[in-house]
Amino acid sequence: MSTQGKVSLPVIKRLPKYYRYLTNLAADGKDKVSSSELAHMMGTTASQVRQDFNCFGGFGQQGIGYKVDVLLEEIGRLLFGSGELLPTILIGAGRLGNAVSSFIARDTNGYRLLAAFDINPELVGHQMSGVTIRPLDELESFCLENKPAVAVLCVPRQSAVDLSDELVRLGIQGFWNFSHYDLSVAHPEVTVENVHLGDSLMSLGYRLRNQDS
Amino acid sequence: MSTQGKVSLPVIKRLPKYYRYLTNLAADGKDKVSSSELAHMMGTTASQVRQDFNCFGGFGQQGIGYKVDVLLEEIGRLLFGSGELLPTILIGAGRLGNAVSSFIARDTNGYRLLAAFDINPELVGHQMSGVTIRPLDELESFCLENKPAVAVLCVPRQSAVDLSDELVRLGIQGFWNFSHYDLSVAHPEVTVENVHLGDSLMSLGYRLRNQDS
Repeated sequence: MSTQGKVSLPVIKRLPKYYRYLTNLAADGKDKVSSSELAHMMGTTASQVRQDFNCFGGFGQQGIGYKVDVLLEEIGRLLFGSGELLPTILIGAGRLGNAVSSFIARDTNGYRLLAAFDINPELVGHQMSGVTIRPLDELESFCLENKPAVAVLCVPRQSAVDLSDELVRLGIQGFWNFSHYDLSVAHPEVTVENVHLGDSLMSLGYRLRNQDS
Repeated sequence: MSTQGKVSLPVIKRLPKYYRYLTNLAADGKDKVSSSELAHMMGTTASQVRQDFNCFGGFGQQGIGYKVDVLLEEIGRLLFGSGELLPTILIGAGRLGNAVSSFIARDTNGYRLLAAFDINPELVGHQMSGVTIRPLDELESFCLENKPAVAVLCVPRQSAVDLSDELVRLGIQGFWNFSHYDLSVAHPEVTVENVHLGDSLMSLGYRLRNQDS
């Protein structure tokens, strides 16, 4: 089942959540699930669930619900393709890079960590999530040889500005971007997933200071 | 300038981004900015910018643009109130907890880290981002005495399930939640900001595998 046209970002962002809930349901031995049960778990409405699934052809709801194994397989295929892992490098092996490298190294997420890079000579040569931290000046030769498709940026804003042109030139197609440089504005041709932790904290603060819930 | 009614979550989530851009503009010595300049930086439209600002009374656009210092001050007041820091605890002092604690400890984000907790005796007693890691069984007495308002959850899903009732009972009003437990479903009365790093990676994978950009 392939996607019909371009699926909107909010729908795409809900797919992993569906996948997590369905994995739990399957582990509990549940065969079928209704759109309203799923909606309750997701904190949304049954109509939203059906709308989301219709973006992908509907996933064959019959009678009172969806088959859990069919949903898991279809959504899994959307998220992970046929199972090939995306070759990935990480830049910036400080505290944050160290923490997020474990998410890349976990192959259930669909990625394979090839190498990490840092400019700090004290970090170079150490192991992190199963790979060696290399000096940043090996970036170009490494990419030419190993052809990573994804780069994780755990560097300050200015380093991200300085590096992004080169990374795109070296063939990087997707960024998991923890820096405060919104590189999709300069590079609309690549796919960028931003995780702005500072922004996330500030919007939590706004909601706590200004709203009731 | 106070908010008129309930502001939608997407607008709230854009406020920190406006704040970052305006901080950069002010640092560059810029006095005025138009909605279309802001829109270009944000990767959105001028009409979206004006709509967002209208949720807060408009921020007094005059003629060709907004005053950068006025915008910064107004948005800063929305995000940080009158400057009081939100007292915060962190639970789970592993690699991820260690990395995110630095965002809490950075008082420009509007929080004050009071303590960290972990069940791992090897971590207890160590320092992390300026606080001591305490054993989890001190959680209740610590909260009763120090009245934290925010909890950061860097623990596995099941621990988050086990802890969340107690934390809400102990007066926690806001959660920065890195666990895969969607606690806002069980606790609609608290404010939850989820950071699901695995979900973020999976949706990046979807976009790389299924779409053109």
